[in-house]
Amino acid sequence: MARITYLTTIDFDHGAVAGLPDALAELGIARPLIVSDRGLVDAGLVDRVTATLPADMSVEVFDGTPANPTEAAALEACDRYLEGGRDGLVAVGGGSSMDLAKAVAVLTTHPQPLSQYAMIEGGVARLTDALAPVVAIPTTAGTGSEVGRGALVTLADGRKLALISPYLIPKRAICDPELTLGLTAATGMDALTHCVETFLSPLVNPPAEAIAIDGAARTARWIERAVTHGDDREARWQMMMAAMQGGMTFQKGLGAVHAMSHPLGSLAEPTLHHGTLNAVILPAVLRFNDGHVGDKYERLGAALGLGDADLAAWVEDLNARLGLPAHLRAMGVPDEVIPRMVEGALADHCSATNPRPASAADYRALFAEAMG
Amino acid sequence: MARITYLTTIDFDHGAVAGLPDALAELGIARPLIVSDRGLVDAGLVDRVTATLPADMSVEVFDGTPANPTEAAALEACDRYLEGGRDGLVAVGGGSSMDLAKAVAVLTTHPQPLSQYAMIEGGVARLTDALAPVVAIPTTAGTGSEVGRGALVTLADGRKLALISPYLIPKRAICDPELTLGLTAATGMDALTHCVETFLSPLVNPPAEAIAIDGAARTARWIERAVTHGDDREARWQMMMAAMQGGMTFQKGLGAVHAMSHPLGSLAEPTLHHGTLNAVILPAVLRFNDGHVGDKYERLGAALGLGDADLAAWVEDLNARLGLPAHLRAMGVPDEVIPRMVEGALADHCSATNPRPASAADYRALFAEAMG
Repeated sequence: MARITYLTTIDFDHGAVAGLPDALAELGIARPLIVSDRGLVDAGLVDRVTATLPADMSVEVFDGTPANPTEAAALEACDRYLEGGRDGLVAVGGGSSMDLAKAVAVLTTHPQPLSQYAMIEGGVARLTDALAPVVAIPTTAGTGSEVGRGALVTLADGRKLALISPYLIPKRAICDPELTLGLTAATGMDALTHCVETFLSPLVNPPAEAIAIDGAARTARWIERAVTHGDDREARWQMMMAAMQGGMTFQKGLGAVHAMSHPLGSLAEPTLHHGTLNAVILPAVLRFNDGHVGDKYERLGAALGLGDADLAAWVEDLNARLGLPAHLRAMGVPDEVIPRMVEGALADHCSATNPRPASAADYRALFAEAMG
Repeated sequence: MARITYLTTIDFDHGAVAGLPDALAELGIARPLIVSDRGLVDAGLVDRVTATLPADMSVEVFDGTPANPTEAAALEACDRYLEGGRDGLVAVGGGSSMDLAKAVAVLTTHPQPLSQYAMIEGGVARLTDALAPVVAIPTTAGTGSEVGRGALVTLADGRKLALISPYLIPKRAICDPELTLGLTAATGMDALTHCVETFLSPLVNPPAEAIAIDGAARTARWIERAVTHGDDREARWQMMMAAMQGGMTFQKGLGAVHAMSHPLGSLAEPTLHHGTLNAVILPAVLRFNDGHVGDKYERLGAALGLGDADLAAWVEDLNARLGLPAHLRAMGVPDEVIPRMVEGALADHCSATNPRPASAADYRALFAEAMG
């Protein structure tokens, strides 16, 4: 069992979920609310988590996490938390469950509406440490939210905004590759995108860059095996580690890929997967940033073992081998939303840390290229 | 200015010391005790730090840090802290000043004797978060103590033991390469040894390994320039970063080099420099560990740009180019202390994370090789 402490304390290994009772005891949580979704309940994943808890522990499961977390779902879970006299949250799921749990942690102790805590609304200063404690148990390898200080939530007004605060970092992450139900190409490419975008971010943070480039190389080495051999324990472990490494480097800032995928992810229709969006958008942004990243493409290429291959083309080929769509159009994104998506990308907090500043015209061109 | 938060918050850049007043204000420190040494006071370094503070701030300077920190000095500084009604510590100096400040932080709020907080005495559980806050301002690039959770102190009984606790991590590190008075080969080799030993440690922590191998490569690239061109701002920045990276990976555990250098550093006579000891001992330990580290020597060699060169031989050559001694005998270590040093190495907390377990006979052989 590896215990890793940087921004949070992470228990990481096959079977790590068995440590949940100890984690709850250490954090003083006696009446947890589990935040998950219907699919994970049906798949028996939530039962595997609750089975580790004492039989006499009062546990409630909220299974209403949407595909992309919403303020409405957070309010509903918060009501359950307060009505049940709960004293802590256990997120079981992918980024949506974890981000929703973070939003619930805010709402249990901070006044509504949630929008006032969004980063671009000056919310960082409004968040205090008086949050309900969150234990994060990821069941996908991708988001990294288990160690991240952000939560992306679609607000009542339709905007998908980030709550960001060191207080949002889960008090404990339990990363158990056994709980990943077969790895998906989309979540794995999400991890790769996190590592690549944070590595390229212009903020000065060499330790984060070192973690990011290692995570990117780990993804490149293991993603195809993890996707094609869902039962490969080593591949699952490695991909969960890569995803966590991506999450550890968020503090360095993401870039234009995320600035573009966030507004797309806020669309009510079609419902678009965050990881797939990132995978599809990444090549266009890599081409856009070329020449604005110093020697980082060479270093990344060397770490990924690309030889002379072009980085953007390598991502496109990888997407194709993984069976992911090549373009946003193939995901059902209609042309008429693009102007609104450009506005959203410009306003997104990740835009500021893209290595090459992107204007509205740039985003229009990037969306056009990604639409295909 | 880079702000980096992992285990602590680090302000890192040329001129970063200007941020000390803000750091103190954020931490609620109004009456700091500066912990430093006579040499740094005489060199004007302490004045450069205190010059950043408001003229009406009550500041006291303790300049009695010995070459290797002692319990006696910690008690003396603690008296000054309590008598002066101080509310926080600012360590200005190398590892000795920072480690002494950490010990003072313990003593201001925890009962004596200090020995009960040593890791090998079960002290981790006795340390609480009720410590005086410490701001660490390193003036060497080597120790990494500014971000580390350990403090090495020679106790009244002569043992050099480690206090280790997450609560010992300085609340703020201010890394200002302008404050490094010309970089020394010895402190730079200390940084390299931290990166190499933590990379080789068998604990599972890929993010720490990524930081460590990056720090090792950074040292290899910059140490000679930093030592020969003390006024090279870029080289100073890079070496201070490498040192900090070494400190960030301490949590993964060091190895036999440190297990051997710690008892040597506790000798009252001769007074031996920790970094020089590590540089001199490192080649012997690298040879001892060969074949017990998986593919890590290959990965390290690739990162350091060694080509086909032997890692241990490369360190020996580097030591020679830097003007460091080749053997402990040349440092004045007498043969008669070795049996006691073997005992000390076996008992040292770093012994447990050497990749190849070392017995008394192994340590005897390692000391014999290092003695020359």
